[in-house]
Amino acid sequence: MSGEQVLLSGTGGQGLILAAIMLAEAAVLAGHNVVQSQSYGPEARGGASKAEVIISDEKIYYPKVQTPGLVLAMSQEAYRKYGLNLDEAAILVVDSTYVLEVKPRQKNFYALPITRLTRSELGGEQSANVMALGVVAALGNLLTREQVTQAVLNRAPKGTAKRNLKALEIGWQLGREAELPAGNRNAG
Amino acid sequence: MSGEQVLLSGTGGQGLILAAIMLAEAAVLAGHNVVQSQSYGPEARGGASKAEVIISDEKIYYPKVQTPGLVLAMSQEAYRKYGLNLDEAAILVVDSTYVLEVKPRQKNFYALPITRLTRSELGGEQSANVMALGVVAALGNLLTREQVTQAVLNRAPKGTAKRNLKALEIGWQLGREAELPAGNRNAG
Repeated sequence: MSGEQVLLSGTGGQGLILAAIMLAEAAVLAGHNVVQSQSYGPEARGGASKAEVIISDEKIYYPKVQTPGLVLAMSQEAYRKYGLNLDEAAILVVDSTYVLEVKPRQKNFYALPITRLTRSELGGEQSANVMALGVVAALGNLLTREQVTQAVLNRAPKGTAKRNLKALEIGWQLGREAELPAGNRNAG
Repeated sequence: MSGEQVLLSGTGGQGLILAAIMLAEAAVLAGHNVVQSQSYGPEARGGASKAEVIISDEKIYYPKVQTPGLVLAMSQEAYRKYGLNLDEAAILVVDSTYVLEVKPRQKNFYALPITRLTRSELGGEQSANVMALGVVAALGNLLTREQVTQAVLNRAPKGTAKRNLKALEIGWQLGREAELPAGNRNAG
């Protein structure tokens, strides 16, 4: 892997900075170089917030995402800002709980009810960020499940490890199944 | 204020990323543009870890710290890596609990027992990061106490708000007192 630029976007309270920090930590555990960042400017005050992770085996000269290889959008506004005009090869994941209007996209597009599943499986929206991390990590094919699990354990706030590991597990499976051709789902 | 580059350094478990995120959030509340980042590379694996915050009223073109205006070092190794070769005008804060050997520095140098005080005042080392944030914010003269308090409340993990606000208060006072000429200490 020569490089991957990941953009996690949504609204302020969704915990995407923490998800990005966990993703960065997993990539460090996998031996890569990583820069993780968030920018706040006039545009950030508009509502959409984003956290970036750049993963590379080379030295990272410019530490901001320029050509995302994977975008997660957890709100309609974030989708509008970051989910359009992507390279065809880029992977786009939207949380279909919140992103209801999407432009058709042939390939590498995954609309998954991440927050809704977090509510139904874990009794509340907390840990939707970690479920999203599981989806992204599984679809990105960058990291092993063990590396991501370790990163979540290292970074989960006190008392939330069990819940977050459950969220990660569900998200990982969701990502893995989404990758399969439609005919093979629930078979693998 | 045209710009300020802040570097919070120490070891992995000290919570400096969270302190940097809180500092960034306070600067956003104050209406500034902010980029907050952490880099992990071969050098980061050496032991010293750092989190960066760039605060500006202009657009931030290069999002990494190049000429720090304020450095916090919470370990001897971090001091060695980031606390030497600073501009004379840069503010250097070291946690004297861990940074025992220092090169003399005439101006803008503050050796404060941050972790030791956290232990004695709060019964453990947790929240030393927030006490350090209080010191840095008070010495940096960038932000009001209210802005930093709000940022800590927004970002403190569940159940830790009270402890972290106490840590912030002690850190803020420590920073304010350290700034006074020696003769005036404990008088203001």
